[in-house]
Amino acid sequence: MLVNCVAYQDGKRLGDIPKEAISDYVNRPECFVWVALKDPTPEELEEMAQEFDLHPLAVEDARHGHQRPKIEEYGSSLFAVLHVVEVRKGEINVGEIDIFVGRNYILSVRQRTEHGFGEVRVRAESEPELLKTGAGFVFYALMDNIVDRYFPVVDALEVELEAIEDKIFEGEAGASARDNMKALYELKHKGMMVRHAVEPLIEAVHKLYGGRVPQVCIGTQEYFRDIYDHLLRVSQQMDGLRDMVTIAMQVNLSMISLSENAVTKRLAAYAALVAVPTMIAGIYGMNFQNMPELKWTYGYPLSLAVMAAIDAYLWLKFKRTGWL
Amino acid sequence: MLVNCVAYQDGKRLGDIPKEAISDYVNRPECFVWVALKDPTPEELEEMAQEFDLHPLAVEDARHGHQRPKIEEYGSSLFAVLHVVEVRKGEINVGEIDIFVGRNYILSVRQRTEHGFGEVRVRAESEPELLKTGAGFVFYALMDNIVDRYFPVVDALEVELEAIEDKIFEGEAGASARDNMKALYELKHKGMMVRHAVEPLIEAVHKLYGGRVPQVCIGTQEYFRDIYDHLLRVSQQMDGLRDMVTIAMQVNLSMISLSENAVTKRLAAYAALVAVPTMIAGIYGMNFQNMPELKWTYGYPLSLAVMAAIDAYLWLKFKRTGWL
Amino acid sequence: MLVNCVAYQDGKRLGDIPKEAISDYVNRPECFVWVALKDPTPEELEEMAQEFDLHPLAVEDARHGHQRPKIEEYGSSLFAVLHVVEVRKGEINVGEIDIFVGRNYILSVRQRTEHGFGEVRVRAESEPELLKTGAGFVFYALMDNIVDRYFPVVDALEVELEAIEDKIFEGEAGASARDNMKALYELKHKGMMVRHAVEPLIEAVHKLYGGRVPQVCIGTQEYFRDIYDHLLRVSQQMDGLRDMVTIAMQVNLSMISLSENAVTKRLAAYAALVAVPTMIAGIYGMNFQNMPELKWTYGYPLSLAVMAAIDAYLWLKFKRTGWL
Amino acid sequence: MLVNCVAYQDGKRLGDIPKEAISDYVNRPECFVWVALKDPTPEELEEMAQEFDLHPLAVEDARHGHQRPKIEEYGSSLFAVLHVVEVRKGEINVGEIDIFVGRNYILSVRQRTEHGFGEVRVRAESEPELLKTGAGFVFYALMDNIVDRYFPVVDALEVELEAIEDKIFEGEAGASARDNMKALYELKHKGMMVRHAVEPLIEAVHKLYGGRVPQVCIGTQEYFRDIYDHLLRVSQQMDGLRDMVTIAMQVNLSMISLSENAVTKRLAAYAALVAVPTMIAGIYGMNFQNMPELKWTYGYPLSLAVMAAIDAYLWLKFKRTGWL
Amino acid sequence: MLVNCVAYQDGKRLGDIPKEAISDYVNRPECFVWVALKDPTPEELEEMAQEFDLHPLAVEDARHGHQRPKIEEYGSSLFAVLHVVEVRKGEINVGEIDIFVGRNYILSVRQRTEHGFGEVRVRAESEPELLKTGAGFVFYALMDNIVDRYFPVVDALEVELEAIEDKIFEGEAGASARDNMKALYELKHKGMMVRHAVEPLIEAVHKLYGGRVPQVCIGTQEYFRDIYDHLLRVSQQMDGLRDMVTIAMQVNLSMISLSENAVTKRLAAYAALVAVPTMIAGIYGMNFQNMPELKWTYGYPLSLAVMAAIDAYLWLKFKRTGWL
Repeated sequence: MLVNCVAYQDGKRLGDIPKEAISDYVNRPECFVWVALKDPTPEELEEMAQEFDLHPLAVEDARHGHQRPKIEEYGSSLFAVLHVVEVRKGEINVGEIDIFVGRNYILSVRQRTEHGFGEVRVRAESEPELLKTGAGFVFYALMDNIVDRYFPVVDALEVELEAIEDKIFEGEAGASARDNMKALYELKHKGMMVRHAVEPLIEAVHKLYGGRVPQVCIGTQEYFRDIYDHLLRVSQQMDGLRDMVTIAMQVNLSMISLSENAVTKRLAAYAALVAVPTMIAGIYGMNFQNMPELKWTYGYPLSLAVMAAIDAYLWLKFKRTGWL
Repeated sequence: MLVNCVAYQDGKRLGDIPKEAISDYVNRPECFVWVALKDPTPEELEEMAQEFDLHPLAVEDARHGHQRPKIEEYGSSLFAVLHVVEVRKGEINVGEIDIFVGRNYILSVRQRTEHGFGEVRVRAESEPELLKTGAGFVFYALMDNIVDRYFPVVDALEVELEAIEDKIFEGEAGASARDNMKALYELKHKGMMVRHAVEPLIEAVHKLYGGRVPQVCIGTQEYFRDIYDHLLRVSQQMDGLRDMVTIAMQVNLSMISLSENAVTKRLAAYAALVAVPTMIAGIYGMNFQNMPELKWTYGYPLSLAVMAAIDAYLWLKFKRTGWL
Repeated sequence: MLVNCVAYQDGKRLGDIPKEAISDYVNRPECFVWVALKDPTPEELEEMAQEFDLHPLAVEDARHGHQRPKIEEYGSSLFAVLHVVEVRKGEINVGEIDIFVGRNYILSVRQRTEHGFGEVRVRAESEPELLKTGAGFVFYALMDNIVDRYFPVVDALEVELEAIEDKIFEGEAGASARDNMKALYELKHKGMMVRHAVEPLIEAVHKLYGGRVPQVCIGTQEYFRDIYDHLLRVSQQMDGLRDMVTIAMQVNLSMISLSENAVTKRLAAYAALVAVPTMIAGIYGMNFQNMPELKWTYGYPLSLAVMAAIDAYLWLKFKRTGWL
Repeated sequence: MLVNCVAYQDGKRLGDIPKEAISDYVNRPECFVWVALKDPTPEELEEMAQEFDLHPLAVEDARHGHQRPKIEEYGSSLFAVLHVVEVRKGEINVGEIDIFVGRNYILSVRQRTEHGFGEVRVRAESEPELLKTGAGFVFYALMDNIVDRYFPVVDALEVELEAIEDKIFEGEAGASARDNMKALYELKHKGMMVRHAVEPLIEAVHKLYGGRVPQVCIGTQEYFRDIYDHLLRVSQQMDGLRDMVTIAMQVNLSMISLSENAVTKRLAAYAALVAVPTMIAGIYGMNFQNMPELKWTYGYPLSLAVMAAIDAYLWLKFKRTGWL
Repeated sequence: MLVNCVAYQDGKRLGDIPKEAISDYVNRPECFVWVALKDPTPEELEEMAQEFDLHPLAVEDARHGHQRPKIEEYGSSLFAVLHVVEVRKGEINVGEIDIFVGRNYILSVRQRTEHGFGEVRVRAESEPELLKTGAGFVFYALMDNIVDRYFPVVDALEVELEAIEDKIFEGEAGASARDNMKALYELKHKGMMVRHAVEPLIEAVHKLYGGRVPQVCIGTQEYFRDIYDHLLRVSQQMDGLRDMVTIAMQVNLSMISLSENAVTKRLAAYAALVAVPTMIAGIYGMNFQNMPELKWTYGYPLSLAVMAAIDAYLWLKFKRTGWL
């Protein structure tokens, strides 16, 4: 689906243009064209490939989708794949945006994402000074927008971890430990999806400002370095998260052992409280002819009292050593 | 076994040629020869070595088989070893394809694989424009086909992991935990076989498009970069799989502990249900002369009622705390 | 909040200058201006950006705060972000200092830290010989001060680890093992915060003395190498700490198992001390007509004596094998 | 001990020469000398050092032995240390071979190995075409022989691992789990010895064919690349082995837990089978005056029948849930 | 404390010289001065700094001590920090030696070590040929001596590990497992201290013979490569040790579980031996009127015999299955 197709000159919007006119504007040196597609059909992609003269391998990647993040040079143009990561109802959703950038065009293809990039266009158009630098700046603005969306996702994962931590250290074992384990496992999985979005990009963005910079990014290197820095920040946070999740799993496992330990002690304490009276009762159940206690008037209540006294003593002792 | 032996000129098939004529066609600058062998005898290999003038070390590698994936330059020709990974009845089967590529010949030697490469030849012959670029493009087409076969294998492993995950989080411990452990162990092993097929190749393919590119690949670098990108994708998925398998093993271990914990509690609860009536019975089995309860008309049913009441109370309590 | 705004010439303090005069002094080649801000408002930052002609991306970073440590070049000036790590009541507090350095100015922006940098100014002013070398030396002096503050933090963490180690190896399991686990988990977390402050800086500082050195640091490379060396030292200590914390967690887990083991044995020993007399009592509670012991005058005390004797024997045996 | 001392010319054996004549032959440009020592005395080494004019540091290394594998250049000659790994009665034996190679000599010093290198000499002499290329080829032939001996060792370790795996997944816990653990620990240790033989060599051999190649290896680079490739193969197999051993240890640990779990359940089942009849017997051992069952003619057999029935029911139930 | 202060010319000892004369000798091109300090006061260091014209940052490092190992260039002179590792009564003691080397001087500052370097001086003076090459050779001789002292330390740690291994695989669990755990933890810690001494040095020494070699080391590169090789050997051994300690910890943990398992089984067996007679006694303690066995003459001894027989049978069965 075509979302937008706009031509710009000198940082100012010339207006929407029909798809067929794209190649005319692309050939005017002072113009650039910015086209946005959303979940396009193969035919729409093919049309764009012809208007912009895109490389068949890049177009094939965009058609298939499910690429890993990357930035590839095809001659003087760039083909970038970025993952758009969103949290929807506690689940991570990974969409994809494929960007084709040339000297005077930019084509973004959005796939499987709810949230669009209209705000990028609005912001870019409000800064004609920067927009004047051309397609490279729009490319930066799109990437910046996508990368900035990683931060709330990372924060959400960190909040999730903290909630699990609290449960681990305060909660009871059992069902809860099982849930914690599952939650940590899923958190690990979500973290992996975010890392897969971020890490391949780091090296790729590095090449946009250091070393031999592609033609289209010249003059905006400092902006791409800024994106690089944001990516490193996300990556560092994700590394920290991964480490803490791993440790939290170990801690949870320890807590299960500790809980097992506590249960064993409690059981043993209760068992003792029952076993000792049973033993005493057994003794007075013996059939010896000559057992003087049996004939005492208060023998029976006395024996019960002894049982109760011993149990009370044990109870206190167990309480004090923390077994009960 | 000789599968095919075909000469091409200007991207068009000249037709099958006899083995003995290979060296004639190889010496014509405008031709190239594409030969496919399958599980060849040493004699067949030797014959090819002479027709194509192959390096003895490369031929020895092809004869022995069981090489690690690699791409080696011998003068202006290349020798590549790739693993063909197939899933057969839940087991990973690793075959091998050795490819000798020169300026105007390509020789593929397929070993221990069920599935052939006829489709590559058909597709290549249907694109004479690309086939015209010569042996380098055929080399790409073969590699592309092999690498594309990795994806369904990786997907199969991921599906297998998901099935085990479900069993871990929902199933009962015991026999099932043992099976999960074994399944995870085998999954790890399968993953290792795929990684051994993929990882050595990544660096090797990198050299086909970046830095000093071998003569035979010049003009098709972008295609090899595409393969490189696919390999990275497989590698990333495999890394993720490896991490999750490791974690799943830990989780499974935790689940075993949790199940042990649950069993201990249940046992203790049942023991209590038996031990308390035993204690009461013991008390009324004592032989004190003066035990008024013994003379009550309803002493016996009352004592049974007390036992039943206590057990009912305990039962409810255990149910409520989740021990039963 | 403006803390200081001082102009220097030839290593000597010219005196405080009004904010508006900054740009005048900055344009005099023989002067340099040293300004310190603390938790500035966006307006204050904007004002400084204009006086010093700072790059908008750097200013934006300083306004947002929460950057990862880094040193970036913008033309001939540098923008550095450092984390100030302090221990406050057992918690790690991470503040931030952003430093803008040019040929003849230095602007430090301190955020979320208690402790200021007045002492750096005092020390620098007392060494006019070194201060004469200009903004680069002040930059070094600030970094040196911040990096030196890492050492007491690392030492505090190491002391904390030692305290936990003692508890692990000497203490009883149970509540204490749970506390140890939590303490180790938190120590891990604190360590991560310190490492996040230190590690990105290592590579950044490396670039200030090796390879292409920024203009502003020329002549003071050996000083920056000294900082680099300190950072490596902190990093090595932190790596050691991380390893030991991981191991300590494992050890703690083992100790929990061992404690479980000890408890099981103790319980079993006590159970035996009760079960054996119960069995004997059971035997003499049988109703056989012909049980000669029952008629012995001292049958009853003898049976009690046997019970006591067996228990005493068991007690000693358990004591000797360490079960009690 | 001197094993061989032979001079060669144009790829043909001139014949054995006395030790004293070595330096004469070494100085003839068209000749080369190949000397093999075995566990030499310091005096023998010293003599060789003088005949061949070897570097004192290299000679000291050869005298001390117990070096790590390496290849060092001393001017135009090379000094190589390789580990010879053999399996003797299930134990890994690590011998050492030190090789001094110059333009026209090769001296091999074999230490602590059973198996000699006579076959290398025989094979080399049977290929005069290759032997003609001089000392570099002999150096290759020796290394190739040593590296090829790693494969059966690796295979033996893999077979050992498979045997342990079978025991882990099928065997009973207890003594066997302890043996598995010990076997895995020793396997880990053996694997480490092989890796220590292989890994330092990889980088060293890489320098013999890539980058600035030592004079003595020029013309045989492809042969050294072949060795490099074999080393990578060994290394990859060893990495796989290491990973699987680590995992197998974890699995074994899980199996111990599972077995503990199973034992606990069995015990509990048997305890229940004893406890329930005991409780019933206790009830009918109570001394209430009014217990009608006691007066029934078939009260006693009935009570026994009830006990037996309950136990039979429990037995079946436990069998069905897999506790027995 | 000044230990030695000697001037050398042409590899021969000129004799001890007073501290004040150092700068005179240093200025004579054909001489070099070798000074050894031990735990110097700040004043002594300051004096030396002036005589040798040392860089203030290096002197500050030497004054503070507790540096990480490193080798830094200050102009044409070197400043090296090495850790001297000694085993004293089972504990690792880490001392420090700071070495300042210039074209014609060497100053060694020894701190917190028992063992001096007199033997290095004796050996160096006995080899005037090598000593003639100047300060670089003395620098090598000192480093060589320090690095050679690492080997016995590593060997001592390996012996310690072997002793623990024996205890793990043969010993009983309980107190011993706790001790093993502690011993392994401490071994880990000691290993870390050695690694901290060795690893930073590896890269530093590499720069003394490869790439741009400092002036003072030219002509002795092969000697520094020899040290590099020794360091790699220590490092490899330490890596192996670290891996084995980690594994040994896991094995120890498994052994604890196994021992728990064995204890549980033994307890259960003993419990059964008591519970079964108790049940039988309970049955014959029932008060049914019609229990024919009670009236048998040998009923009582028969019942005891049955109890004994069942226990004997169980005993044998438990023995055979290894539970007792």
